[in-house]
Amino acid sequence: MVTVNKNYLKLQGSYLFSTIAKKVAAYQEANPETKIIRLGIGDVTQPLAPAIITSLHNAVDEMAHAETFRGYAPDLGYEFLRNAIAKNDYQDRGCQIDADEIFVSDGAKSDSGNIQEIFGLDNKVAVCDPVYPVYVDTNVMAGRTGEYNPVRGNFDDVIYMPCTEENGFLPELPEEIPDLIYLCFPNNPSGAAITKEGLQEWVDYANKTGAVIIYDAAYEAYIREENVPHTIYECEGARTCAIELRSFSKNAGFTGVRLGFTVVPKELERDGVKLHSLWARRHGTKFNGAPYIVQKAGEAVYSPEGKAQLKEQINYYMRNAQVIYEGLKNAGYSVSGGVNAPYIWLKTPDQMTSWEFFDYLLEKAHVVGTPGSGFGAHGEGFFRLTAFGTYENTKEAIERIAKM
Amino acid sequence: MVTVNKNYLKLQGSYLFSTIAKKVAAYQEANPETKIIRLGIGDVTQPLAPAIITSLHNAVDEMAHAETFRGYAPDLGYEFLRNAIAKNDYQDRGCQIDADEIFVSDGAKSDSGNIQEIFGLDNKVAVCDPVYPVYVDTNVMAGRTGEYNPVRGNFDDVIYMPCTEENGFLPELPEEIPDLIYLCFPNNPSGAAITKEGLQEWVDYANKTGAVIIYDAAYEAYIREENVPHTIYECEGARTCAIELRSFSKNAGFTGVRLGFTVVPKELERDGVKLHSLWARRHGTKFNGAPYIVQKAGEAVYSPEGKAQLKEQINYYMRNAQVIYEGLKNAGYSVSGGVNAPYIWLKTPDQMTSWEFFDYLLEKAHVVGTPGSGFGAHGEGFFRLTAFGTYENTKEAIERIAKM
Repeated sequence: MVTVNKNYLKLQGSYLFSTIAKKVAAYQEANPETKIIRLGIGDVTQPLAPAIITSLHNAVDEMAHAETFRGYAPDLGYEFLRNAIAKNDYQDRGCQIDADEIFVSDGAKSDSGNIQEIFGLDNKVAVCDPVYPVYVDTNVMAGRTGEYNPVRGNFDDVIYMPCTEENGFLPELPEEIPDLIYLCFPNNPSGAAITKEGLQEWVDYANKTGAVIIYDAAYEAYIREENVPHTIYECEGARTCAIELRSFSKNAGFTGVRLGFTVVPKELERDGVKLHSLWARRHGTKFNGAPYIVQKAGEAVYSPEGKAQLKEQINYYMRNAQVIYEGLKNAGYSVSGGVNAPYIWLKTPDQMTSWEFFDYLLEKAHVVGTPGSGFGAHGEGFFRLTAFGTYENTKEAIERIAKM
Repeated sequence: MVTVNKNYLKLQGSYLFSTIAKKVAAYQEANPETKIIRLGIGDVTQPLAPAIITSLHNAVDEMAHAETFRGYAPDLGYEFLRNAIAKNDYQDRGCQIDADEIFVSDGAKSDSGNIQEIFGLDNKVAVCDPVYPVYVDTNVMAGRTGEYNPVRGNFDDVIYMPCTEENGFLPELPEEIPDLIYLCFPNNPSGAAITKEGLQEWVDYANKTGAVIIYDAAYEAYIREENVPHTIYECEGARTCAIELRSFSKNAGFTGVRLGFTVVPKELERDGVKLHSLWARRHGTKFNGAPYIVQKAGEAVYSPEGKAQLKEQINYYMRNAQVIYEGLKNAGYSVSGGVNAPYIWLKTPDQMTSWEFFDYLLEKAHVVGTPGSGFGAHGEGFFRLTAFGTYENTKEAIERIAKM
């Protein structure tokens, strides 16, 4: 008799952003005249940069002629893109990462969900709390997390590393030694950034304990301050303990274009096996490459014109971040993030729960944010706003919030 | 201490098509002057149809302006595409499939690899032998197949259903009752097609035993004969036992564009759980939608112009199939397939093994095909040629083979 994967039944409610979407849709239906401003989900609003549009059109034209038509892509991505990534994101920063250590994918969400597959089911996972839900949910689905604990509001066999006001929203090295450590810096949801020294401690810890760090650097393009590492491979020894996940969604507005990549250094070995060969096998067996036209769009991100245009785009969003950060601060809110990240993390006023504040904000200011509790137990009492709206909407949203 | 997923270590050699690619590359390097004709991997060669190119350009232009820019797609696919699929592929054929039973993805390879995740690890899997390797390999990776048996050349805990000359390359209902049954018709690799009555037997069997059929209909556009079902939902009762996988790779040349979909009827329940809700959860958690521009390309497949242009494209490939089929038959080969499918399945001459014939063909005719044994033990002694080349190359390849 067919059985289903019972681990799925341990998942709590539906995926955070689907829940928000449903709530907002219901509110809009009940209040059709109201102009709702969405600063919730981390979706971008600026159009693709001109250099990327040109590259996409050219690639589409290539697909129209037999001589230049492209079928199945190389399993791990086209060399033109892998070379551009290796040079610009790594070698130019002094990090020794080769093109064949880069695996091009359809985005960091897929990669961050799939990467756990190459590990045994007996590994203990450590995550920040609050955390991007995909890391935990995909480990729940695989059966690595134990049962859901309704009292604690999380899973029995996961090591949660609290990120709180007290520790500046930066996790501390866990006492119980984990096998897999998910880290994301600049952080989603808190917007916190880690210094190079801070990250070096994690690399040293992983190398000492034999743990593997899965490092999500999706927001690196927003880093403004010196001494904040853009990649974990800036840290000495990271090649023997870290996998890095990267996205084109936030640095180039590819949320609807879908492109990302994962770096697995060839030295990274556990249990007598090179993780590079396992991930290559997974990629080759379960994935058939990102679309050619999308990989050409990715290449344009690294062209001189692309770089200049995207720098402007990121400055645009970071001006929003500043508007939110300062506007809320002036209105008396306790805020963090927003300096090296497009996320602003605020403490809910008057001891409201995160969802109470969500409803309050939607009702009073018609602004949508993301409840911190949706990211984990230690996110309770916090709330995330994103800088990805338009400048005009962002300004209006903050004015409305200030007047509440 | 970190452990790896040891099931990966049970996988034999590297992925079939990577092995072929390496062999061909080595031969070409040693014989740089030789014109190799590739009729091996199932990759298309005709450019995208004009209607699809126009739709892609338009969608790219939409991405260039804030008013029409699209970020994250709806989890399960855009409604415009799901509606077009439901109407054209199902409702117009009299099959009751609703748009919200369709899950748009980046291709049938991903879906056929990922679908097993929603089932328990204790399910027994049945596959045709020979078979598309992804079905088996992804179950190996999950740990559902037992150990590799070097004597039999396959896995201990899988039910292999031999598809041989004697049974016309159509599997028989297995004596040992499986939980998950993978079927692909028109078949890859053999090109065999099943009649509606034949498929109805499988649907009845699954409904009687409680098994679930995972039905891969990637090649349905090549069906020429009456009474060959285009979808499993033409069979009565399929809504309570079958999941269908579909691809745009072969009907519209999207191998490098990446688009596919999976149908999970809402009635399909096992172990007290709706499979629709499990797959929706998987899709929402580990995938972030196919690119907007690609989904617009998919929509164009169903436009009147798109349909007319793609019909021509498929006729082009099917003329190749005929050239191969008849050319080989006239040259004295024993051949099947090629009538409702773009694949021709031939018996190797002189008791050669499949890989011996691969080397022989590469050496003597400079033609690349796919060794039948790469698809399973019962593929030994057979060889697959595809109709996806250009007409000129296909003709030349068959002339060369006839002269060997």
